[in-house]
Amino acid sequence: MAGKGSASGAWRATRTLWLLMLVGLSVCVCVCRASSPPPSAPQEDSAMENIVTEKRAEESHRQDSADLLIFILLLTLTILTIWLFKHRRFRFLHETGLAMIYGLLVGVVLRYAIHVPRDMSHMTLSCPVNSSPATLLINVSGKFYEYTLKGEINADELDDVQDNEMLRKVTFDPEVFFNILLPPIIFHAGYSLKRRHFFRNMGSILAYAFLGTVISCFVIGLLMYGCVTLMKQVGQLNGDFFFTDCLFFGAIVSATDPVTVLAIFNELQVDVDLYALLFGESVLNDAVALVLSSSIVAYQPQGDNSHTFEVMAMLKSFGIFLGVFSGSFALGVATGVVTALISKFTKLRDFQLLETALFFLMSWSTFLLAEACGFTGVVAVLFCGITQAHYTFNNLSADSQDRTKQLFELLNFLAENFIFSYMGLTLFTFQNHVFNPMFIVGAFVAVFLGRAANIYPLSFLLNLGRRNKIRSNFQHMMMFAGLRGAMTFALSIRDTATYARQMMFTTTLLVVFFTVWICGGGTTQMLSCQRIRVGVDSDQDNSMSIAEGSERRSTKQESAWLFRIWYNFDHNYLKPILTHSGPPLTATLPPCCGPLARFLTSPQAFENEFQLKDDDSDLILSDGDMNLTYGDITVSTDASGVHSSGGAAAASSDDLDRELTYGDHELVMRGTRLVLPMDDSEPPVTDAHQRMRM
Amino acid sequence: MAGKGSASGAWRATRTLWLLMLVGLSVCVCVCRASSPPPSAPQEDSAMENIVTEKRAEESHRQDSADLLIFILLLTLTILTIWLFKHRRFRFLHETGLAMIYGLLVGVVLRYAIHVPRDMSHMTLSCPVNSSPATLLINVSGKFYEYTLKGEINADELDDVQDNEMLRKVTFDPEVFFNILLPPIIFHAGYSLKRRHFFRNMGSILAYAFLGTVISCFVIGLLMYGCVTLMKQVGQLNGDFFFTDCLFFGAIVSATDPVTVLAIFNELQVDVDLYALLFGESVLNDAVALVLSSSIVAYQPQGDNSHTFEVMAMLKSFGIFLGVFSGSFALGVATGVVTALISKFTKLRDFQLLETALFFLMSWSTFLLAEACGFTGVVAVLFCGITQAHYTFNNLSADSQDRTKQLFELLNFLAENFIFSYMGLTLFTFQNHVFNPMFIVGAFVAVFLGRAANIYPLSFLLNLGRRNKIRSNFQHMMMFAGLRGAMTFALSIRDTATYARQMMFTTTLLVVFFTVWICGGGTTQMLSCQRIRVGVDSDQDNSMSIAEGSERRSTKQESAWLFRIWYNFDHNYLKPILTHSGPPLTATLPPCCGPLARFLTSPQAFENEFQLKDDDSDLILSDGDMNLTYGDITVSTDASGVHSSGGAAAASSDDLDRELTYGDHELVMRGTRLVLPMDDSEPPVTDAHQRMRM
Repeated sequence: MAGKGSASGAWRATRTLWLLMLVGLSVCVCVCRASSPPPSAPQEDSAMENIVTEKRAEESHRQDSADLLIFILLLTLTILTIWLFKHRRFRFLHETGLAMIYGLLVGVVLRYAIHVPRDMSHMTLSCPVNSSPATLLINVSGKFYEYTLKGEINADELDDVQDNEMLRKVTFDPEVFFNILLPPIIFHAGYSLKRRHFFRNMGSILAYAFLGTVISCFVIGLLMYGCVTLMKQVGQLNGDFFFTDCLFFGAIVSATDPVTVLAIFNELQVDVDLYALLFGESVLNDAVALVLSSSIVAYQPQGDNSHTFEVMAMLKSFGIFLGVFSGSFALGVATGVVTALISKFTKLRDFQLLETALFFLMSWSTFLLAEACGFTGVVAVLFCGITQAHYTFNNLSADSQDRTKQLFELLNFLAENFIFSYMGLTLFTFQNHVFNPMFIVGAFVAVFLGRAANIYPLSFLLNLGRRNKIRSNFQHMMMFAGLRGAMTFALSIRDTATYARQMMFTTTLLVVFFTVWICGGGTTQMLSCQRIRVGVDSDQDNSMSIAEGSERRSTKQESAWLFRIWYNFDHNYLKPILTHSGPPLTATLPPCCGPLARFLTSPQAFENEFQLKDDDSDLILSDGDMNLTYGDITVSTDASGVHSSGGAAAASSDDLDRELTYGDHELVMRGTRLVLPMDDSEPPVTDAHQRMRM
Repeated sequence: MAGKGSASGAWRATRTLWLLMLVGLSVCVCVCRASSPPPSAPQEDSAMENIVTEKRAEESHRQDSADLLIFILLLTLTILTIWLFKHRRFRFLHETGLAMIYGLLVGVVLRYAIHVPRDMSHMTLSCPVNSSPATLLINVSGKFYEYTLKGEINADELDDVQDNEMLRKVTFDPEVFFNILLPPIIFHAGYSLKRRHFFRNMGSILAYAFLGTVISCFVIGLLMYGCVTLMKQVGQLNGDFFFTDCLFFGAIVSATDPVTVLAIFNELQVDVDLYALLFGESVLNDAVALVLSSSIVAYQPQGDNSHTFEVMAMLKSFGIFLGVFSGSFALGVATGVVTALISKFTKLRDFQLLETALFFLMSWSTFLLAEACGFTGVVAVLFCGITQAHYTFNNLSADSQDRTKQLFELLNFLAENFIFSYMGLTLFTFQNHVFNPMFIVGAFVAVFLGRAANIYPLSFLLNLGRRNKIRSNFQHMMMFAGLRGAMTFALSIRDTATYARQMMFTTTLLVVFFTVWICGGGTTQMLSCQRIRVGVDSDQDNSMSIAEGSERRSTKQESAWLFRIWYNFDHNYLKPILTHSGPPLTATLPPCCGPLARFLTSPQAFENEFQLKDDDSDLILSDGDMNLTYGDITVSTDASGVHSSGGAAAASSDDLDRELTYGDHELVMRGTRLVLPMDDSEPPVTDAHQRMRM
């Protein structure tokens, strides 16, 4: 009866859903029609000018609301359809891909189905001004009106401006992406990076993200320069396209965004190291690509020809890259640290609302501070997120941990789907597309080769140093998972003033569509084709590594000396200063700093001293369990295993090893089968449950 | 040792906090200084005009970021200080009052401490245009720049515009309040109205909110007209001030916002009926005042003199009031119902993120839809919130119930404190204050008398019909709790073009300051002065009502016939259609609708048929408990109590009685002491705990 009931329920639900979708789409169309300005009624009373102005402002506001409503309805439709897909376990289309399809449909409707009467609300003035101020005061028969500068318009767009009011209305200012939509996405990515496997693969991730992105950028740039030179010779190019433009294109398409792939990885429980490599790389290379592209734009040689090679200008660009990146990094980390200190030294955790609000505001202020100082807010927000996850998160109350996770999860979901549906829409509503088949084919080849030049050589080099090799099927999968997404789109739409930029924008859009639909949709096939094991529970993974025996201490040797130094510093000083965990500072700092150490160490640290509570773990265990488990591991795996809890420096190298392995052992030893949550989209309520049970 | 540790911890925390505050304020000042435009460097190369334009745009963006950063830092400071106050149990200053004080301080700094060099980024054009289009294209030596209309500027403000760029920068477009800040506040209010005591006092609340607000508006309007006439005669008035202006003033200061008082009520556990009356009134009268003020603005008699009395124009205004109010109401309820249907008929509850996102998007779309249709978005959002709480909330998964509550709680907190700190700031940064002592004194008297004319006569009339009288000390408390807040401020800043409006704005600001600081701060004193019991646990309340015996069935007789009809309809038809609770429709609908009824009834409803699960209760009980309890009550309180579960119509009148009382009995019968949570700011995790325990 229950089975039958749920089946008929699902059938009813499906019917209802399709009905709703039909209703939704027709509402969309109605809204579009409604939002087109009505033919203005003839004004009988010319004296009521004020009222006319007010009415026009009201009309404009109504239209804005209607435009935004289109996107909201689009997102609603996407959510309902994606629910259906999840319900039916369709895996070939991710929500972002679906959002793009709906966006495309609405774009077609806006472009072709809706006739907008030409309205005369524009006016061209030819005033004798020799500059374009940010604010303009216009004297209209004794009354002053204030105007703000929106931007420059090309002379050939002029007719479009007056024609396609409707299409222009649904076009957002590109800065909206950088100031409103990207920050929560990037923060969320940073905030969910706090994973054991991320730190285990940190070296490789940094190599792919920094070195790999730069390689990819230059390979794509060089290939595109070849392509453009060829196009010039066969007369396919109708405007300027310089080498810096090629490099800029290389930078913007080097930012990967495998959100689709990762969602499937998470669902199918693919190898955790592969997941960590892909996720870590994509998070960091967004930041690298963003700063790289702005450095390339800043390349301006002196003299007449502004597109020659010049060492000084290149060095300056390189300096800008370093300066902006490190400045944003420092600011992000700094606000994270301030938040951690506030949450440690105040008892704000007694008031969860205040705590959550403070966390949100501090994270937002990072962005604003970086922008106000001339750094890159998005990059600052990324590192702020990582710092918050690593330190502040441990100081928050359990309730606030859930709240902040859920809040940024929701913001990320909404912003991401908004961007992807806007992407679909803009393929039809953007007015200055330049479709150049040769450039597009060249770009696809270059993007493919650029990704290959990133993954394969670097993997080869990394494998020289890695014990736990990146196997060739993993390399192919990483190659395949080089999807382009929100950051690439935002960077390409930021400036579409010149012919070169317009061609880039069109091509980028197609690259994103292709990779999200084809590569994203083919993930399951690719996984089985490459024989990458799915359904890998972490305990299976570990029973193997235990069986192999010699692999046991590999994590310790694998980690480079730089990472070891950092880990020791973090564990002995930063964690105790910024959080309630870690060894007390009185034990790690030299005796001369005694009073300071006592002031900075939280009372919990003294209590936890012998319990070795470590908040980095994904598994939430009570202290008692953890202690016992660690004891077992030490005995069974480490022959020298007398736990020296007194000397912190001596203990810390064991700590590192334990941190990197104990979670796995825990599972094996107790014989329970806990699924290690590697993805951040897992419902955080699970954590809450676990915590409550204890 | 623990006690000593926490004491020294608190001391350390306090020191840290004050340090942080100092740092914060100095950062504020630095940011202000940084955000003032630097003197423009002489441009050597005049050809690089593009770069100059870009740089200027970048500069403007940096300045915007810095301005916003000021507010974020202000809010952070407010949060830290309010934590300190809560920690120390200071009750004389609420967070909103504190936010205003910090706003004032920063306003003083901005106004007097920061010298902004006069910059030449403005330019006045005197072009031969005879209208002010929304978009303007300016031809500057062959290049076209697009400008958007920001608004009209008075001729006498012209110098200010050029002088006080800095002050203008921190001035928001008033529409920001109506489109961004007020909707979450109002939605949150509606979403937390789902309380048993609200429905018990519904008649009185509607009377205070609708009739009371209109009375208050007209009383204040008439008194102010008298005041203005007097001012004209003694020559204190420097501009026009018509009767409609007086009425408008009456409308905007009639919206009460006792958030300060309610926070204290909640903390001290003041009588639940008093709480429900005040909260319900303040939520609804915001909507009434908003629509009322726009109807008064729409009053425009035909003919030359636009300020005479005319029946047609008045009727039209009245029609607008009814139309806008009912239209917004209908839209809000409609989207709420659609959301309830979607959440009922899809299994979206399996995916909490999708569910929460859908809930958020649908609630937001209400606002946009209402604005796009020319209704009032804020009012629509209010009724959408009430509908969502009454129906959709029951269909959500436990996780989403928490998530949505917490999300809107956070948004409400941030938006509210932002508005109040902006209020403080604007007292010094707003450029066109008109301080007229006579008008201000008159306004204070009028506001006082208007509130009195609302509360006392209506309470007298309501007491004629109420069994559970509104006692005189409750009336005095309601009178005293007539604070003015966010809505009043937003309405008064919306239009500050004329002399009358400017004087109103200044006066309103002072009224808000006075009521929030004096009335808000004196709540505890007023409570003890009026001998209103504090620390009233709901079980005490109920043991009394049981002892009184005759009061037992008062709730049934008290509720008016209109409410009974609504309740029966809601319980028999709406609840079963829109949620999983209530009796199955097959029992309540006539037999001819059999198939439809079976289609609409959820499987749970059949299962719940005999268990009489009611989601309206604030107490979450397992079905078994409830059933047992109900059995007890029926026997002990209702002599005719054979439970006729077959006839739904017969059962429903019992249901009403039970719904209004059983929660109380539950507590008494079992002898447990559960605190009935009357406030919405209680941490929702409590619910989750309770649910999990069962």
